[in-house]
Amino acid sequence: MASIAPPDVIRSAYAELVVTDLAAARWFYVDVLGLVVTAETDDALYLRAYEEYTHHSLVLRLGEAPALALLSYRVRGLQEVDAAEAYFRDLGVRVQRVPAGTTLGIGEAVRIEDPLGFPIEFFYDCTHVERLTQRYDLQPANALSRLDHFNVLTPDVPAAEAYYRKLGFGVSETIEDADNLYAAWLFRKQTVHDIALTNGDGPRLHHLAFAAHERGNILSTCDLLGALNKQGMIERGPGRHGVSNAFYLYVRDPDNHRIELYTTDYYTGDPDNPTVRWDVHDDRRRDFWGNPVVHSWYSEGTVVLDLDGKPRALGSAAASEEKVRVGADGFSVAEDLGEGKLGNQV
Amino acid sequence: MASIAPPDVIRSAYAELVVTDLAAARWFYVDVLGLVVTAETDDALYLRAYEEYTHHSLVLRLGEAPALALLSYRVRGLQEVDAAEAYFRDLGVRVQRVPAGTTLGIGEAVRIEDPLGFPIEFFYDCTHVERLTQRYDLQPANALSRLDHFNVLTPDVPAAEAYYRKLGFGVSETIEDADNLYAAWLFRKQTVHDIALTNGDGPRLHHLAFAAHERGNILSTCDLLGALNKQGMIERGPGRHGVSNAFYLYVRDPDNHRIELYTTDYYTGDPDNPTVRWDVHDDRRRDFWGNPVVHSWYSEGTVVLDLDGKPRALGSAAASEEKVRVGADGFSVAEDLGEGKLGNQV
Amino acid sequence: MASIAPPDVIRSAYAELVVTDLAAARWFYVDVLGLVVTAETDDALYLRAYEEYTHHSLVLRLGEAPALALLSYRVRGLQEVDAAEAYFRDLGVRVQRVPAGTTLGIGEAVRIEDPLGFPIEFFYDCTHVERLTQRYDLQPANALSRLDHFNVLTPDVPAAEAYYRKLGFGVSETIEDADNLYAAWLFRKQTVHDIALTNGDGPRLHHLAFAAHERGNILSTCDLLGALNKQGMIERGPGRHGVSNAFYLYVRDPDNHRIELYTTDYYTGDPDNPTVRWDVHDDRRRDFWGNPVVHSWYSEGTVVLDLDGKPRALGSAAASEEKVRVGADGFSVAEDLGEGKLGNQV
Amino acid sequence: MASIAPPDVIRSAYAELVVTDLAAARWFYVDVLGLVVTAETDDALYLRAYEEYTHHSLVLRLGEAPALALLSYRVRGLQEVDAAEAYFRDLGVRVQRVPAGTTLGIGEAVRIEDPLGFPIEFFYDCTHVERLTQRYDLQPANALSRLDHFNVLTPDVPAAEAYYRKLGFGVSETIEDADNLYAAWLFRKQTVHDIALTNGDGPRLHHLAFAAHERGNILSTCDLLGALNKQGMIERGPGRHGVSNAFYLYVRDPDNHRIELYTTDYYTGDPDNPTVRWDVHDDRRRDFWGNPVVHSWYSEGTVVLDLDGKPRALGSAAASEEKVRVGADGFSVAEDLGEGKLGNQV
Repeated sequence: MASIAPPDVIRSAYAELVVTDLAAARWFYVDVLGLVVTAETDDALYLRAYEEYTHHSLVLRLGEAPALALLSYRVRGLQEVDAAEAYFRDLGVRVQRVPAGTTLGIGEAVRIEDPLGFPIEFFYDCTHVERLTQRYDLQPANALSRLDHFNVLTPDVPAAEAYYRKLGFGVSETIEDADNLYAAWLFRKQTVHDIALTNGDGPRLHHLAFAAHERGNILSTCDLLGALNKQGMIERGPGRHGVSNAFYLYVRDPDNHRIELYTTDYYTGDPDNPTVRWDVHDDRRRDFWGNPVVHSWYSEGTVVLDLDGKPRALGSAAASEEKVRVGADGFSVAEDLGEGKLGNQV
Repeated sequence: MASIAPPDVIRSAYAELVVTDLAAARWFYVDVLGLVVTAETDDALYLRAYEEYTHHSLVLRLGEAPALALLSYRVRGLQEVDAAEAYFRDLGVRVQRVPAGTTLGIGEAVRIEDPLGFPIEFFYDCTHVERLTQRYDLQPANALSRLDHFNVLTPDVPAAEAYYRKLGFGVSETIEDADNLYAAWLFRKQTVHDIALTNGDGPRLHHLAFAAHERGNILSTCDLLGALNKQGMIERGPGRHGVSNAFYLYVRDPDNHRIELYTTDYYTGDPDNPTVRWDVHDDRRRDFWGNPVVHSWYSEGTVVLDLDGKPRALGSAAASEEKVRVGADGFSVAEDLGEGKLGNQV
Repeated sequence: MASIAPPDVIRSAYAELVVTDLAAARWFYVDVLGLVVTAETDDALYLRAYEEYTHHSLVLRLGEAPALALLSYRVRGLQEVDAAEAYFRDLGVRVQRVPAGTTLGIGEAVRIEDPLGFPIEFFYDCTHVERLTQRYDLQPANALSRLDHFNVLTPDVPAAEAYYRKLGFGVSETIEDADNLYAAWLFRKQTVHDIALTNGDGPRLHHLAFAAHERGNILSTCDLLGALNKQGMIERGPGRHGVSNAFYLYVRDPDNHRIELYTTDYYTGDPDNPTVRWDVHDDRRRDFWGNPVVHSWYSEGTVVLDLDGKPRALGSAAASEEKVRVGADGFSVAEDLGEGKLGNQV
Repeated sequence: MASIAPPDVIRSAYAELVVTDLAAARWFYVDVLGLVVTAETDDALYLRAYEEYTHHSLVLRLGEAPALALLSYRVRGLQEVDAAEAYFRDLGVRVQRVPAGTTLGIGEAVRIEDPLGFPIEFFYDCTHVERLTQRYDLQPANALSRLDHFNVLTPDVPAAEAYYRKLGFGVSETIEDADNLYAAWLFRKQTVHDIALTNGDGPRLHHLAFAAHERGNILSTCDLLGALNKQGMIERGPGRHGVSNAFYLYVRDPDNHRIELYTTDYYTGDPDNPTVRWDVHDDRRRDFWGNPVVHSWYSEGTVVLDLDGKPRALGSAAASEEKVRVGADGFSVAEDLGEGKLGNQV
């Protein structure tokens, strides 16, 4: 493996979710979240956010049961698709070369089952579509700008982090203690992450996140869901993450897929960007304002398909961030931490 | 006059504008500004903002030439409509009693030609309609909450201010110097104003203002106009007023009627609310950030009709705030003022 | 009682809290919440928000145990202080006339023990101080504009509501079902409330609320508390209330007094302002986004002193909004409500 | 030149400005703009914004006359400093190798006089300092996040653009017509620009820009300057750029150096990121809301020093965007453009 360079990944680019009711999914993603329909067929929707000119950042495909069918990374050029094929064949995982158009709007690609158990794609070519950045006449109050990242549940975060580091990803932040690495945030583009690794039974998808310009855009989604009497679709938030410093909201779609709305994290593009290491006992790591993380957020996730479309079996996580968080006396131990301790940020 | 009490006015309630192209006006007020259509006929539109439950706050009526047909105040009860009739008959101005329904949705009313030359109405009864405060599913990014105030051009501001004070209005702010009162802001409801008096040839309507929740709502109107390539309809702003401290934007409708979008002024409901007196030489009085006021804003206004629908002749203003502002050397003299001089606010 | 008119109350004006550590209280209210110190003595702090020109809206007085010492309403003039004295003597409650300066900065006043058990003051005269509306050089990111309202716990909300209605307050919103009135919001100034009545063991103070301009100001308080590692002082929120439509945050001071930060509710100044009646089963009434209300918010409150400074005994509430909310099956019953049902708002 | 690769530039990293009054400059940059002091000596200030962990992004050095002393780019590693030396020696421009500490906090570097006449530095090593991202206890309402870009005046934009493209920069946007390229925006990091090239007599610095999280942060700077009666330091804005879609404000420091506050542009990190080409006749290119660009903004800039500290002579610009903008009839020609024409964004 030492002799084969990994492909040059640009960023997390799109996900394909299996949904059980396309009309309900369209209502949620288009009417509620305000995503733009690039293309629509009998059994699929291809959606993008307002600042995206690549064909789509989300595919919703009709199926029997909710699942994640694909997480797709864009690489720097067509030659990097070849590089991906070589790299993963050498790694010994299952690899498929798929022709252009296998997914509408996407060129020639390589698909793999990665060592963590996820169906992953690498592509470069894709259809360009109109970037609607300044089409404020089309944008609702809760407009989204672009896909920001994937977040996955995996039982062995240290192994997963090592895998992604070898693939060329940088580590922006972690949650850890002396014994365990509970979560890690890794990036290729110059934001806090393209992929987050969350401790839990896996492989499962924890969530997809879309970026918005400002906190107000995200609060508008809350208001809209309340107005529709669909406030139950809000799972957690709004709040500010300790990790990433981003303002966030988690919503669940009609199939219970989890979507994060996310804004104003920070620049990570310098090679010596410091990794921020959060103590798992710091109450602010998941919500900087100390609001509790709901149990479902820790425990629930989307089933993952293999490249044949079959659900993956789950491995069990040994460590549990959720359990560590509360001390033996039943109280959070955050109070014991010194003031202003935000991990090593230098 | 001493023996007759003025009617108990609650607030500025609605205006009726004559527009020359109802479709164009609908586009501007409904599609761009996002006002809600309460009712629509062949020759008129009845509009309201999202927090209003009274039938309308703006009537657009088709006519030959752009004009202001009516400024309407709501009074505290039906008996106050009678009080208005008695008060203005005693004052010796032209008074008309009009039956319920003369304006759709409005009950019995009294209309007058006031001493400043404006067609003014007083009513209490009106049709209630759905208050859409929390219908975020209907509200665009630039949603407006309610009509806030009228602003009129009049050649003799001191006389106009005295007239409105006798009518029971409080004075929140002024622009003045040793010799002249250039402008005054007067209120009945507990905000900075229901009516502003602006020095200029008159009677003319300077603008109507609608309130929004936050600055972001108003900036969204700017973005929307730019997206539509109708940025030329923005006349002035966005900015923050020195007077009132409100964040503002002025737009011109297809007939050149001027509309202000306005947010976060302050509470004025205590009887000893201090009047803030701005020195006319203080560059911050009209824009707290010192941005220049465009000439059209000082000079242009909407023709006013009498109760027969005939345009009013204009009286000429003696004083001119616009001219005073610039010193003999052609430069603004604002620099000579001490720091932090905001008038007497105690 | 029929023959004696109630005093003309303008608004909720200030509260006096007993705190056990003045330095800690100063840190919280001045350094964290950003209130302005009007005056300071060995055993008391007199604070105001940036748009207030009356001497203070909060007095913090050093004492043995945390308590509410006074809720004070401003009336329309000195003669209304007399009117208050007459009204409450007639009502048969305990009444004290106190001379000017009994509270620093406050003129002659009447204090009573009201029928709900609260120590209430009525005053008009007070010292004017600088209104700092535009002193942005002094204002932090989380600046507060003015005191907005009081919220009290009382076992018998229907009786309390009837008492306040007789005192001339209007009812803007309620939470109720066929059998019970769980909470009511009543106002004199033209906002949703000056006083809210919350079902619970009482008399106790539930919270004081300060208004801010925008949601961003309130989110800045969250960020500040997180930065100081004092996120545990955030009790509930941020969120949007169903009732009032205001954006909110609840924090607890070092003595556990509860403070609400509150923004953008709506105008209620018309005499026919519709009362919004929320079904107690509507999950959105307390948080429009469906976030759960923490138990402490329902159950905890500040002890109230009588006019001799002795703590009041509590009466027990019969009804409980907190318990009603969850159906027999343990699930919220909000899902059973139709879409968009926000109570009668016409 | 073909055989020598350019250095791998990461981003615009810091500028050094000569100021004539260090106390006045400190007031402006620290007290008003809120930048953080990393280090301070008798004749210099080293400043950074809240999300920066590299030693500084702005050096203010006391001198006789206002000037730009240095624009500094960070490169990907120490070997890229060598690469810069080789590349520019080959290019035939003046090159200086300077030891670590030549600028406080900055390691070994290469300085050049670039073909456009600017003093440019390339460095990698630098002292890390505390990243204050979440120190909301230190951040004012108008907090700035990081240096975003440089903008320079140069008489020959096409030549300058070709120079920067060879150096490996991508072109995100332009202003042009059939005959001329008036301005170009080029980037290394994944934002709209690290450097903008503006047509005008040059070499001069047009401005430095700092990024903020949201529009509200920038509006707070306006409010602060008004409160200080220093509103005259606002030169242009606030507004939204057509180019970049960013919300902006231009202020002038006590030496007339121009600083831009800038927020929410967009991601440009994909290799096929479309170049947006604005027609010079489109009124929205500089301000999406059509607000006029003040003359000083087009005409004024900061003198540039050579590596000996001597002011550079200016070359005259042939083309002039400012003059093109207005048609022969004296009116803007923007109205002639079709709706929604925002250049090729696919």
